[in-house]
Amino acid sequence: MIAILKQSASDEAVGHIVSWIEKKGLKTDVSRGENETIIGLVGDTTKIDPFLLESMDVVERVQRVSEPFKRANRKFHPEDSVIDCGHGVKIGGDQFQVIAGPCSVEGENLIRIARRVKAAGATMLRGGAYKPRTSPYAYQGMGPAGLDLLCEASAELDMPIVTEIMDPRDVQVFLDKKIDVMQIGARNAQNFPLLKEVGKTKTPILLKRGMSGTVDELLMAAEYIMSEGNDNVILCERGIRTFETRTRNTFDLNAVPVLHHLSHLPVVADPSHATGYTRYVEPMALAATACGANGLEIEVHDDPSHAWSDGAQALTPDQFDDTMHRIRAIREVVCQETVQE
Amino acid sequence: MIAILKQSASDEAVGHIVSWIEKKGLKTDVSRGENETIIGLVGDTTKIDPFLLESMDVVERVQRVSEPFKRANRKFHPEDSVIDCGHGVKIGGDQFQVIAGPCSVEGENLIRIARRVKAAGATMLRGGAYKPRTSPYAYQGMGPAGLDLLCEASAELDMPIVTEIMDPRDVQVFLDKKIDVMQIGARNAQNFPLLKEVGKTKTPILLKRGMSGTVDELLMAAEYIMSEGNDNVILCERGIRTFETRTRNTFDLNAVPVLHHLSHLPVVADPSHATGYTRYVEPMALAATACGANGLEIEVHDDPSHAWSDGAQALTPDQFDDTMHRIRAIREVVCQETVQE
Amino acid sequence: MIAILKQSASDEAVGHIVSWIEKKGLKTDVSRGENETIIGLVGDTTKIDPFLLESMDVVERVQRVSEPFKRANRKFHPEDSVIDCGHGVKIGGDQFQVIAGPCSVEGENLIRIARRVKAAGATMLRGGAYKPRTSPYAYQGMGPAGLDLLCEASAELDMPIVTEIMDPRDVQVFLDKKIDVMQIGARNAQNFPLLKEVGKTKTPILLKRGMSGTVDELLMAAEYIMSEGNDNVILCERGIRTFETRTRNTFDLNAVPVLHHLSHLPVVADPSHATGYTRYVEPMALAATACGANGLEIEVHDDPSHAWSDGAQALTPDQFDDTMHRIRAIREVVCQETVQE
Amino acid sequence: MIAILKQSASDEAVGHIVSWIEKKGLKTDVSRGENETIIGLVGDTTKIDPFLLESMDVVERVQRVSEPFKRANRKFHPEDSVIDCGHGVKIGGDQFQVIAGPCSVEGENLIRIARRVKAAGATMLRGGAYKPRTSPYAYQGMGPAGLDLLCEASAELDMPIVTEIMDPRDVQVFLDKKIDVMQIGARNAQNFPLLKEVGKTKTPILLKRGMSGTVDELLMAAEYIMSEGNDNVILCERGIRTFETRTRNTFDLNAVPVLHHLSHLPVVADPSHATGYTRYVEPMALAATACGANGLEIEVHDDPSHAWSDGAQALTPDQFDDTMHRIRAIREVVCQETVQE
Repeated sequence: MIAILKQSASDEAVGHIVSWIEKKGLKTDVSRGENETIIGLVGDTTKIDPFLLESMDVVERVQRVSEPFKRANRKFHPEDSVIDCGHGVKIGGDQFQVIAGPCSVEGENLIRIARRVKAAGATMLRGGAYKPRTSPYAYQGMGPAGLDLLCEASAELDMPIVTEIMDPRDVQVFLDKKIDVMQIGARNAQNFPLLKEVGKTKTPILLKRGMSGTVDELLMAAEYIMSEGNDNVILCERGIRTFETRTRNTFDLNAVPVLHHLSHLPVVADPSHATGYTRYVEPMALAATACGANGLEIEVHDDPSHAWSDGAQALTPDQFDDTMHRIRAIREVVCQETVQE
Repeated sequence: MIAILKQSASDEAVGHIVSWIEKKGLKTDVSRGENETIIGLVGDTTKIDPFLLESMDVVERVQRVSEPFKRANRKFHPEDSVIDCGHGVKIGGDQFQVIAGPCSVEGENLIRIARRVKAAGATMLRGGAYKPRTSPYAYQGMGPAGLDLLCEASAELDMPIVTEIMDPRDVQVFLDKKIDVMQIGARNAQNFPLLKEVGKTKTPILLKRGMSGTVDELLMAAEYIMSEGNDNVILCERGIRTFETRTRNTFDLNAVPVLHHLSHLPVVADPSHATGYTRYVEPMALAATACGANGLEIEVHDDPSHAWSDGAQALTPDQFDDTMHRIRAIREVVCQETVQE
Repeated sequence: MIAILKQSASDEAVGHIVSWIEKKGLKTDVSRGENETIIGLVGDTTKIDPFLLESMDVVERVQRVSEPFKRANRKFHPEDSVIDCGHGVKIGGDQFQVIAGPCSVEGENLIRIARRVKAAGATMLRGGAYKPRTSPYAYQGMGPAGLDLLCEASAELDMPIVTEIMDPRDVQVFLDKKIDVMQIGARNAQNFPLLKEVGKTKTPILLKRGMSGTVDELLMAAEYIMSEGNDNVILCERGIRTFETRTRNTFDLNAVPVLHHLSHLPVVADPSHATGYTRYVEPMALAATACGANGLEIEVHDDPSHAWSDGAQALTPDQFDDTMHRIRAIREVVCQETVQE
Repeated sequence: MIAILKQSASDEAVGHIVSWIEKKGLKTDVSRGENETIIGLVGDTTKIDPFLLESMDVVERVQRVSEPFKRANRKFHPEDSVIDCGHGVKIGGDQFQVIAGPCSVEGENLIRIARRVKAAGATMLRGGAYKPRTSPYAYQGMGPAGLDLLCEASAELDMPIVTEIMDPRDVQVFLDKKIDVMQIGARNAQNFPLLKEVGKTKTPILLKRGMSGTVDELLMAAEYIMSEGNDNVILCERGIRTFETRTRNTFDLNAVPVLHHLSHLPVVADPSHATGYTRYVEPMALAATACGANGLEIEVHDDPSHAWSDGAQALTPDQFDDTMHRIRAIREVVCQETVQE
């Protein structure tokens, strides 16, 4: 961290700030140029509130030099992380996976849908047993019975399952049922007790970006999980909130190469939530593949008009077949190109 | 809810949609004009996903007629709610209250600050014992010991306390310690398990708007609490996230009269978080008072440069004295005017 | 347009609104259901301000049924428009084109860069002679001399040029010099006098989306041009402004399939401005191609560190060679797939 | 401007950057600390593109130290600017003015409305003769005939008029008719040819913030006008575009004290456009007054339901009477308080 002082800063004022910083246990590195005085802060700068430092009278600007995320940072871990999701499925680096299934687990149709998405080439099964809904009057999910249906499908098809957890009190149930991947949804992207609790497990976590979450905040949320000991974090871009209303969210695909630049963690993209409409899912799935995502999460339902949630953005199994065909073709180009370089 | 069909919709297609809606337990009210066919949905429309309905082939647009929030809705509760926060302090209607204190409970300075804010005219004491911090490496709060310090201050000064709860597992502790008002922070504005859990108590809840939360989502979060039986909800505007970076957040003061128009619940504004800089707190506190807020939440610290969190936006007790003087003068104008009409 | 009235609306109030609407020259279509009264407005609804209608006492909501853009609307023009940019280059439908060149025309290096981008496969040459700069102290462009350099390059290489126009007073100069495509930049996306003036020509217009422009506003800007008689409009997504700061703008690639759904006009994407950093240009160019853009606009400079503007986002000619190779491979997949269906 | 280099930067790399900067005519001030190397750029940093510098391999971050706006900057002009709008009306410092009138000049009702707003205490008259409308099919304004009506009202009532200019070709007409204050609307906030053209006059300019314009961009737009020689710039906050849809725009009142902090120019607020609904205009007018605006711009119409534009946000003359009464009472508090300090 660097503090740039005002030209008018007196020696006394500089001394005052230096001693304030050093009392916090950091060292300082002062350089007085002709035109500005700069204090470099050396040590654990997480102890310093940059807003506070900037609010001091003689400080003109404060600038972070290093990112506040450490374990998620590519600087300290240059190679891509590859995460083992169970059933032989790995994601990250050159391992690309498609996670598909219904928005909500609804009953027996789960296994029917699961068979279709597996046949089409999906390697992981998604389905929500606990549903975060804007309205308390909307369907809230099947709960533990839904988890059981997922586990049955997983066993029959030998594929890992991904399902959302919303409450730190549910972690034990997810562990007992051996859920392969726990998903943290956009609304819980800064639910720190939940992040810490899943951080105490070794289960892979699919961590979605918050609706107004910056890339840095997503990485800090990953840091919460990793700082508790769980390095198995998969990041997920699922659209952010902007002024545009023609789609449910604004798909920030820039975040895919940005996250790859900043972090070693795998990055998945969710074109279903990021668009909100079936007709836009395929083109945006292809776009996400083309810009280097390590995987996709796509909602599939065999009867979207009767889905219990989010039917408007679900592909039918037939549509999913077609889309997978095209995803594979794009993925092939991306891989070839990487190899050629 | 109204579904407007495409001009091209055949009688058969209309019949198909009507039966789909009626299977969900609603009645329909079809009117075929020369230029459009409109289906009115009568009954519990929370069972219908408007995105799904809109995604159907023959549907042009779907429009809600009534708001999805019921208990928070002024239509069904025209008079202002007044909420009893304990120690004789009520908020809402013409009862205006100022909540003040440090961002974090840090130790013995709490009672010193508390005495000062009470002397200046604050009627409720704030202070965080559990702190949501973007970084896992930042100070996370004193926990239960912090609650105890708040309770001691409350007892000595006979004023209610407001303090943040982040984890549904902590509700019992807050109840045991008889915390007067539980605050739900911006990051938990859609933490539905937490909202439900505090909804099962009768403790007043100060509910902050999420960083990217719409006014409607804030009211739906209130609805989560109220639908569990707790009607004591105080709404709080604390700034939203936009592209502007000169302030920490963008203070959406429009939300104050909008919330009064839509809901009977009291509305408080937080100029400290909404600006992020001490120098802007007073003018924005006055603005919030002038546009009709039922109260303010303001951070005060007796040594901001050593505050453990958010010192950049804290007023000193002396600054707070001045600010309270001006808030009262503005409030007097607002009240007079209301009376004169 | 549909006006949904409040349940409490009296017959008299309904009559009052109906006569107000009819005085504006529209017909009405009133249907009184048990639960709501709906007035359909038939005729030229551009004469009605929906905000004003909604502000009336007995009106609950107003909903547009048809889009306010007519000439740009796919409903009235189902086939894709293909626009002839001169020199035998057409864009739209299955005609895909890459526009490349430096941000600013700077001098003799233009022709060197132009030769390289043509050799790499670009079919149109870009370069700014008039530059919109946030600071009045920044380089403002070469002006007419820059246009001359572009024309020389165009003649030598037999390729159309695209260059920005900012001032309605410059249209005649652009016509005199026979500029192939006039670009309207993001900052002028609602500069209506300029839109009207270029609408009076027959020159193709590359129309960029405003920084905070919705998809609908982009289409209304196209409508301004088309309503004056110039149907040769190419839409361009170039990133919108959001809270994310790791990239210069947020690339809203969702807009590509959304614009194709709503309009028949060609859609181009600009990954250079949408990301702001060279390292993200290639992945996002591939993404834009994969989701169906009809073309790309990419900044190329042979010495980015000495470029007069926007060097941070320019590819070198060597990087552009590689990127073009990959764009072609992705484009091939997209085309095959379209054919297979 | 400060460039913070990567730890790994070699002496050679540092030398390379230093010489690159010096070739641009700036001096450098290099300080190599143990943990980072910092280059201070001394001189006219407007010649340096910070994005480009940051994109260089060995550069970690670039940070502006001084704002890019000079003439608008309070640092170089500590006292408030007071601008003479003619007819004895001054704005800025402790001179507070209310600008009121219809959105559009429509005909003879202008003088009726003008008499009412003057009687209520408004000191400047607004009205649009040239209207920027999203749709080319919407009413575009009366043009020169509207200017004449404004001039007649101005002469009769001896009050300055404020009216929007959209096209640089119209400046001469505005000068010929001796328009007191030319307004630049939000859509033209970065229409640089227009800003330069009005900068060549001495007429006061009411400059509105763009819909997605930052505070810094507003000040840079002012800089465009001032750099041409016209220092008579009045800044106007009129709401920005965010995700919230319950109001037409989000009123960023934080910008009022922020602009006062950064600049000496007067700051006006427009609660009519910032809310979009009559019922929110009064509370937000009071809020803007309370946080220190130097003036307000408010739309008033004697028959809002027949206004040619923006009737939904107009006050009637009776409502305006009441609102002015309250604005004066709030203003009195703000002034007393300032004096007391």
